[in-house]
Order: sequence, then structure tokens, then C-alpha cells
Amino acid sequence: MLLRMSNLFLRTLREDPADAEVPSHKLLVRAGYVRRAAPGVYSWLPLGKLVLENVSRVVREEMNAMGGQEVLLPALLPREYYEATGRWEEYGDTLFRLKDRKGADYLLGPTHEELFTLLVKGEYSSYKDFPVVLYQIQEKFRDEARPRAGVLRGREFHMKDSYSFDIDDEGLQESYDKHRAAYIRIFDRLGLEYVIVSATSGAMGGSASEEFLAVAPTGEDTFVRSTGSDYAANVEAVRVPVPEALPLDGLPEAKVHHTPGTATIQTLVDFLNDAGLGRDFSEADTLKNVLVKTRVPGTKEWELLAVGVPGDREVDFKRLEAALEPAEVEILDEADFAANPFLVKGYIGPKALIDNKVRYLVDPRVATGTAWVTGADKADHHVVDLVAGRDFIPDGTIDVADVRDGDPSPDGKGTLYTARGIEIGHIFQLGRKYADAFQVDALGPDGKPKRITMGSYGIGVSRAVASIVEQSHDDKGIVWPREVAPADVHVVGTGKGDEVAEALRIGQELEARGLRVLVDDRKAAPGVKFTDAELVGIPTTVIVGRGLKDGVVELRDRKSGERSDVPVEEIVDRTVAACAE
Amino acid sequence: MLLRMSNLFLRTLREDPADAEVPSHKLLVRAGYVRRAAPGVYSWLPLGKLVLENVSRVVREEMNAMGGQEVLLPALLPREYYEATGRWEEYGDTLFRLKDRKGADYLLGPTHEELFTLLVKGEYSSYKDFPVVLYQIQEKFRDEARPRAGVLRGREFHMKDSYSFDIDDEGLQESYDKHRAAYIRIFDRLGLEYVIVSATSGAMGGSASEEFLAVAPTGEDTFVRSTGSDYAANVEAVRVPVPEALPLDGLPEAKVHHTPGTATIQTLVDFLNDAGLGRDFSEADTLKNVLVKTRVPGTKEWELLAVGVPGDREVDFKRLEAALEPAEVEILDEADFAANPFLVKGYIGPKALIDNKVRYLVDPRVATGTAWVTGADKADHHVVDLVAGRDFIPDGTIDVADVRDGDPSPDGKGTLYTARGIEIGHIFQLGRKYADAFQVDALGPDGKPKRITMGSYGIGVSRAVASIVEQSHDDKGIVWPREVAPADVHVVGTGKGDEVAEALRIGQELEARGLRVLVDDRKAAPGVKFTDAELVGIPTTVIVGRGLKDGVVELRDRKSGERSDVPVEEIVDRTVAACAE
Repeated sequence: MLLRMSNLFLRTLREDPADAEVPSHKLLVRAGYVRRAAPGVYSWLPLGKLVLENVSRVVREEMNAMGGQEVLLPALLPREYYEATGRWEEYGDTLFRLKDRKGADYLLGPTHEELFTLLVKGEYSSYKDFPVVLYQIQEKFRDEARPRAGVLRGREFHMKDSYSFDIDDEGLQESYDKHRAAYIRIFDRLGLEYVIVSATSGAMGGSASEEFLAVAPTGEDTFVRSTGSDYAANVEAVRVPVPEALPLDGLPEAKVHHTPGTATIQTLVDFLNDAGLGRDFSEADTLKNVLVKTRVPGTKEWELLAVGVPGDREVDFKRLEAALEPAEVEILDEADFAANPFLVKGYIGPKALIDNKVRYLVDPRVATGTAWVTGADKADHHVVDLVAGRDFIPDGTIDVADVRDGDPSPDGKGTLYTARGIEIGHIFQLGRKYADAFQVDALGPDGKPKRITMGSYGIGVSRAVASIVEQSHDDKGIVWPREVAPADVHVVGTGKGDEVAEALRIGQELEARGLRVLVDDRKAAPGVKFTDAELVGIPTTVIVGRGLKDGVVELRDRKSGERSDVPVEEIVDRTVAACAE
Repeated sequence: MLLRMSNLFLRTLREDPADAEVPSHKLLVRAGYVRRAAPGVYSWLPLGKLVLENVSRVVREEMNAMGGQEVLLPALLPREYYEATGRWEEYGDTLFRLKDRKGADYLLGPTHEELFTLLVKGEYSSYKDFPVVLYQIQEKFRDEARPRAGVLRGREFHMKDSYSFDIDDEGLQESYDKHRAAYIRIFDRLGLEYVIVSATSGAMGGSASEEFLAVAPTGEDTFVRSTGSDYAANVEAVRVPVPEALPLDGLPEAKVHHTPGTATIQTLVDFLNDAGLGRDFSEADTLKNVLVKTRVPGTKEWELLAVGVPGDREVDFKRLEAALEPAEVEILDEADFAANPFLVKGYIGPKALIDNKVRYLVDPRVATGTAWVTGADKADHHVVDLVAGRDFIPDGTIDVADVRDGDPSPDGKGTLYTARGIEIGHIFQLGRKYADAFQVDALGPDGKPKRITMGSYGIGVSRAVASIVEQSHDDKGIVWPREVAPADVHVVGTGKGDEVAEALRIGQELEARGLRVLVDDRKAAPGVKFTDAELVGIPTTVIVGRGLKDGVVELRDRKSGERSDVPVEEIVDRTVAACAE
């Protein structure tokens, strides 16, 4: 059935919505794809529904092809299941909670691990039943603190979530790999530019995990990629190459210097370079010891932790939190310093830390045999040539220094640079966390029960729509990849003669040839129609206008902007060919 | 892609679920289509999801064909919109309410009139924009007091809801008629036996309204139909034919009789027949006056109401409530009788009612010129030959006597009988209620604003699935109509030779011919496979078993039970033909 703009429920806007900051938000609203119903809650208008359906179709086809079975679980879930896994509390304010008329507690599903686990437990009981992959495409609910950017981060959003159930770790790895391959096919078909980054685990609780990030300057996630390879990772997951230990023989002895007024790295370096020590010092030659306190969940006591990093680097707090998860981390306050007088601010060195049994972890660059300028635990004093592995032995390494553009890539190829992305997919080896919570066992071939192992895998379907627009637009509007476009061709009839009738005729012929067609048959000025066509962003446009009297119509490509005049009798074949490219 | 039972997420059950009373609930659970997640909340397993999708597809195709445009609105809705129409309160406990992290009130959409009205108000402003019909297929949430019967009455369920917007009443009628025609096509395609009944308005607030009821003895709705025509109506909507007024001339005079101990109709009739009055009396000759009290919403005062019905009928309280809506109705208590001593229980007559200004409404059968035996407002006394329109003039008529099997059909053709049904569709002329609440005007051709008028139209998609099973099953399992079946053919391979391999080969050929195929390739006993095939209910079955060594397979029709042996080389053609019937 032809989509006709004369009766399509579509009104484009000339102005950006007041609350919109990112291109996809502006354009999806202006081009009439979505409308805001409440903060972070959107309605999908007819063209938007078509795009959403196209993305869902691609996801469904690839999930079916990899052996996934589609089901549909409810959004309204009883508290007891999430209580059993601790997530009723863990989710905090992000969970929408409600009571039914009898006062029983419910939640709106933010993700469905619990229910899928119970579903499989209910049906399957033998190792022969496994593996199985179940998925659904469904609305999810998360009460985001800061819903933003239209459908990019909503509170009610569309997601594909799937869950794999295997009898052993090898099976889980296989299910994980199949999902990874399916996700690559899905995002390729959606025309997205993306990277796959190693991710640290969030609240899901598990081990191996990767994120698919659509590359976009407006993305909320920072990641690093390499100039010399496909390497990409979340900043939290970057692992600095560990240098080989250097021989300790023949290194100069450590020596304490009086370094008045050098409580900062820069003043210290300047002082040393002016001190006539016969060599040049840089910030990278200094060892900075940063003090924090940590607390293991379920305990009350805070414990001191010192992190030693080269003086030209900062401790990246997000990397630190990720490295210490699930423990909490806080900066020391004045009371902490007062309680630990051996911590001499600006002059903290390894000696006092080790002597006072403070847990001391250092950056991997602080390898055995490296010599450092560092605090001498006494105001206005530093020690030079303090050698790791000789003069001090830390409790271990911790890889939490900030990652910078130009750092060597961990894979040894090229250097790193920072980019931003939008999380569009996440694949995750959950392991046995949920199976343990609900005691899901399968009877093994030996007749003994065997705990199953799981993976969970998500794709943000509505977010993918916005991500495509983030990557594929220009100053005039959206430029849809054909696979997700609401139509293949936009036939625009302009003029007071037969142009609109001819546009409808061409539209019908194109439809008979299997194309999805939108016809602009409105009574409106040509300029309005052209502007709308570019804003709406259908990949191929046919203009039936002034040239018609000479038997000519125009074929336009939205992406390249290429235009060509085509004899009207050839336009159907030419358009079909253009759409097949 | 072939559905293969060896890995399909499907486990059938031999026992009915403990909480199941109706066939669809038992069978959809036993055959592995749905699983309960919480009271009135269900998960759809792979085969169930396919059926749900098939029903949705039929609905979508017909809604598109009638000019509807598909959109998708959120389930999470802010209170303010429902506050504006009074439904935040009106819905009572049926509404799921919740708060977000900022304490703002939300609800889970039970139906979406408010949001659709606002959506159209936001986009459209001129009479030229109308009419428009928007629809969605989406999860709805209603906190039913007694969720029952599996997916037949759930708390989270799937619904198609559409809304028409027109500039005038004629337009609304046209949109309504188009929906009515589309619903007929939809329910016909779904293979449902249904009736269309006039409905009285519920909480929606409007005028013309019809319900589509799937005929089923397990249905919650009672309706009446005629032996002599297509007439069908909700009991609340039945209108008794109004008899013509009879001439008053020459009728005997009313006379009070001492009728001791005749406080009931039966004792009265017996007394009169024994009293030698020269004629026979039946219950239908007596006029029973039933007292209730009513209260208009927003007021505190209860008002007395007397309802006069022939003594052989009862007042149907549901019909009474519907007739008096939105007023409340209650039975009188002892205090009410004590406060109104003129009400002599068992002997209440029109005179005392009228003298004491009690509002007095009578059954249409109590027409002018009809003579009655009724109370004389004095214990142990009745009046005989009291003539309506001569001896008393009621305040009006009210059509709330019980409707009985054998009553004449209101259309004059045949007599009525009672049946039960499941509400699967509802079409409703809302009028301007919502447009008034949100002040939705369109600029008319005369440049003046014109309030728009609306209709709302629902189909219970998940309920339709259950209704189909209610109508289409036998003692062995479900019998799906082909249009909604999860597959066209179930190919069952049984035996230890090549049977399963051959079943898979045939399945693949059938699929190549465009059929949807489920193959039973499990390692299981033939009896298990046959039992499951009948339970699951695919319309056509091919059995590849013992006969294969002689080149013969069996073709079975699930509905008729018909079986025929078919040479294996003909089975594909024969099956394709059987599926096209």
C-alpha cells in the first residue's frame, strides 16, 4: 500500500525542539518520527514505527539464524524473583516499582535474567535439553536519573534481550561467540559504524563481556582505539603493556634530598632540574602516591589504599572503581589524614606506606628495576633513585592510571586515541550467578545434577534507531540506510498539472516492482516538499515536476546528492536499479 | 527455517494446571504455548509467540486496509493526562499506579484515549487534516480484581486499540462503520464464531457502541440472541417491544380485596384463584413494585425509586444499574423502610408511591389500559383491576425486568434465548468527551474552530488467541484454524530406521513450497509424538512411520480426524493441496 503524504500522520517541524541537544533527537522529532509523551518516554509515529520495525526485523532474522527462539515475557514482574537475586535492592532508584491492588510488590522489567532463568528451570531438566538460546524484543523500563537525547536514553525503550543456557563453560563460550557473530551481522546490516570493546562487568555480575559501541561524538561512552589495528576498548578495560623487569645491578643508590616547597610534581621537577644533579628530570620520572580508602560490601570498616602512578599521570577514578569493584572507593578526607600522621601530604613515599602496612598497589610501569623520584615521608624532602624491587616492594600492580591519546596500543600496534560511542549492544558471560540463585541444575550424563551456566545479550533497538541517525545525517536531515528506511523511494509530485497524478502512477508501478514507496501528493509548494523529502531522509527520491511536460523526471540520491534527469518511461527501471545498488 | 521439536523450547504437560478451569487455559498451558509468571501475567513461549504474531498480523493487515495508520505509544503514562479526563480516579483499583524517582505519578496504560487525543491535537489543526485513524498493537495493563482463565482475562495483555478523529458526526459514523466492517473481516479470518451485540456504555462515556462476542459457554458475558433472526444484544441493551396503549373504555372498576397472608406473588395468585372471582389469575397479572434508592454522582442524598414490573418477572439488577448509570443504586435497608412508613412491605401499590412523591417507573408492559392486581398499601390487602393510565399514572417506563428464554425478539422475529460469550472486540463512538477535556479543535472551512469527535475501538489480541482455543479444541487438544496456527504442517517421524531423516527431508520440501513446518525429530516413542501432535493442534499432520518401508506415509487432518495413506513421492503435493483447502 502506497504511503501518501496527503493523509499520512506526519507533520514536520522547522524548528528544533527546545530540549534537544543531539542530532538524532532533533531530527527524529523534526522529521515526525517520534513525539515526547513524558520525560524519557516517547511515542513512535507511523514513519518511526516502520523504522523501529525494520530494525526489529533485522535483529529477529539474525537471532533466528543463529538458533535463537523468540518468546515474549511480561513487563510486569513480581518482586520475589528479583529479591532472590538481590537486584530488587541493587537496582536502586533505576527500578520502577509498584504495588497491585492487593499490596503485592511488582517491578517493571529493566532486563529479564530472573524470569528467563525460572522459565528454563521450569521446562528443562536434562543435559540433553541444552543448549538453548531464548530471546524477545520488548519494551523495557528503567528510571534513568537523567533521561536524555530523545530515544537515545529513554525510560521506556525497546530492547532485544537474549539469554543462553549451557551445561558447561565451553558451551557458554560457544553461545557467546555465536551471539558475537550475530551482532556483527546485525550492526553491519543496520549500516552502523561500531567498535567492539572489552567491557568490565557492571551490576550483572559475571566475567567475559564486550560492548558494541556505535561511534558518535555525542555518545556517552568513552573508549580508546588504536591508530594501527582494530584494537578498541572501554577506558576501564585498557591494560597497559607490562614492561619487563630490569636488572637491578649497577643502579645508583637512593638518596634523600632536601627539596623545599615541592609539594606538587611540577615544582618538584623544576627544583630537581635546577639542582645541578647532572641529568634532566621529567614528570614521568616521579612516582606519585595517591591515597584512597576502600570498603568491601557488607563490611563497615574502611581500609587505606595507596596507588602509585608515574607523576605525569592521574589516577582515573572510573578505572579505579572498575578495578576495585565490588568494593566502594572514596577520596581521603582531612580526618583520615589526621588519623594517619605518617601520611605527609605532598611527600608521601613507599617507605611510610609499607612500614605502616598500608596496602600499596602501583601502576604496571613501576616495574622491577625502574628508578623513581618520590616522597621521603617528611615535609620538603624527596628521595631520588628509589628503585622498585630493590628499595621497595609494593603489594601488587593496579592498572588505573589515565589512558591518553598517544599511549601505545596494548596489542603493540600503533597508538591509542580517545573516541566516544553509544552502547548499542552488550554481550555478557553471566556464568552461574542466576542459576545459583534459583538452583537450576540439569541431570548430567552421569546421573548427577550439574549447575547450568548462562549468558545474557542485549541490543538497544530504539537506541539503534537513534544511533543510525547520529551517524547518518547532514544539515538538511536524516539519511537512512535502505535496510531501515521507512520507504525505498520518495516520489515527489510538484506542479499544478498532471505531476501529482503521474507521481502516484509511478509510485504504484514502483510498488508493483517490490519497492516500498512514499508519495508526496500534498497540495504544497515545491520548496516545502523538497525540504521535507531531505528532512525525512528516504534514500532515493524521484521528482515529478516541471520537466514532466518534456517527458523528464529527476532521480536523486539522498546520500550523495547526485541528481540525474531520466525519461519518464525509464524512471521505473532506473529507480529499481538505484534501489538495488 | 524448519521448527524442529528436538530443540524447540517446548515441553508439553500431561496434567491440567491446578488453577485452570476453562479449556483454553488448560490447553494453552499443557501444549506449551504460555506459562504463568504471576497472577494474570503470562509468558508466551515460542509456539505461543507465533500464534500471537499471526493474530496480530491479521489485525494489522485489516487495519491497514481500512486506512488505519500504525503507531506505537508508551505504556508508561503521566498522571496529568488521566487527571484531565477524570480517569485517574474513575478507574479505581483497576489502574496500576506508580511513582518515578522524583515522586511524579505515573500509570500503566489500560487504554490510550488521552494520549492519542493529545497526539492528534499536537499535529493537526485544520479540518483538511481529518479524518484520521491511528492504531497500535501493544501491551495493556489492568489490575483486574479476579484475573482468571489464563490469558483470557490477564492483568498484562495484548490489545489492538485504534482511535478515529473526525470533524463531524457523519464522519464519526463512517469511521465507526469502517471499523465494524474491518472487525468482521478480522474475526472471520481468525475463524471465530461471534455475534455483534449492542452494548451500553461503560466508563468510556459516549453513545453508540457494539461488542463483538466470541460465542463460548465459558464466556463471562451473557447475551441474548434470537431463534428467528441475527438479533443479538447484551442483556443490558435488550429493549422490550412496547405494547400499544389499550382503550380505557369499559374496563371494570378497581376494587380493593382483603387478601390475608399474601405478601408473596405466589400466595397472592393462589388466594385470588381460590377466591371465586370468576376468572383465573397468573403471576403475570400482578404488578410488583420493587423499591430501591439511587444517588447521582457528586451528591450525598439518596432518592427513593420504585420500579413496577409484572409479578412473573424480577428486576435485573445489572439492567437496572445500566439504565440508571451513572447514578448509584442500592436495595432499601430496614432503616429506609422505617423512615418511610407508607411503604407496607408485600403490599406496596402505586397509590402510596404517587401520593408520597416517590419516583415511580414501570416496565413497558405496564402500558396504558392494562389492568393489574397490586398492593393496596395496607397489610393483607390488594387491589384488583387497577388500570394503568386510568387509576395511576407512573413517572415513566424503565426497561429493567429480567430477560428470559422464549421472550419475543425485539425485532419481531423469533424468540430470545440466552448464550454466553467472550468480549473480543468493542467499537465505540466516544463523541467529544476527550476532545472537550483537551480542547481539541480544528479550524473549519469557515475559519471557525470546530470541536472534533472521536471513536475508540479495541481488539483483545491475546484474548482472541484464547477464544479461538475455547471454540476450537477437542478432548485431545487444540485444533488451530490455519490462519493462526503456529505451523501449517506437523511432520512426525517415528521409528528406528530412516523415518526421522525422511520426515526432515519432507519437511524441507514442504517449506520450499511455502508452508510453515514443524518436524517432530525427537527420540521419543510414537505414542508420545502422536499425543503431542494432537495436543499442539497443527491443522495438518504427516506421519512418516512404519509404512515408509512400503513407500507409504500418512496424511491426517487434525480437525476432521480423516486419515489417508499416501505414496511418499506424492506426499508433498498432497500436503500442499490439503493446506490450500
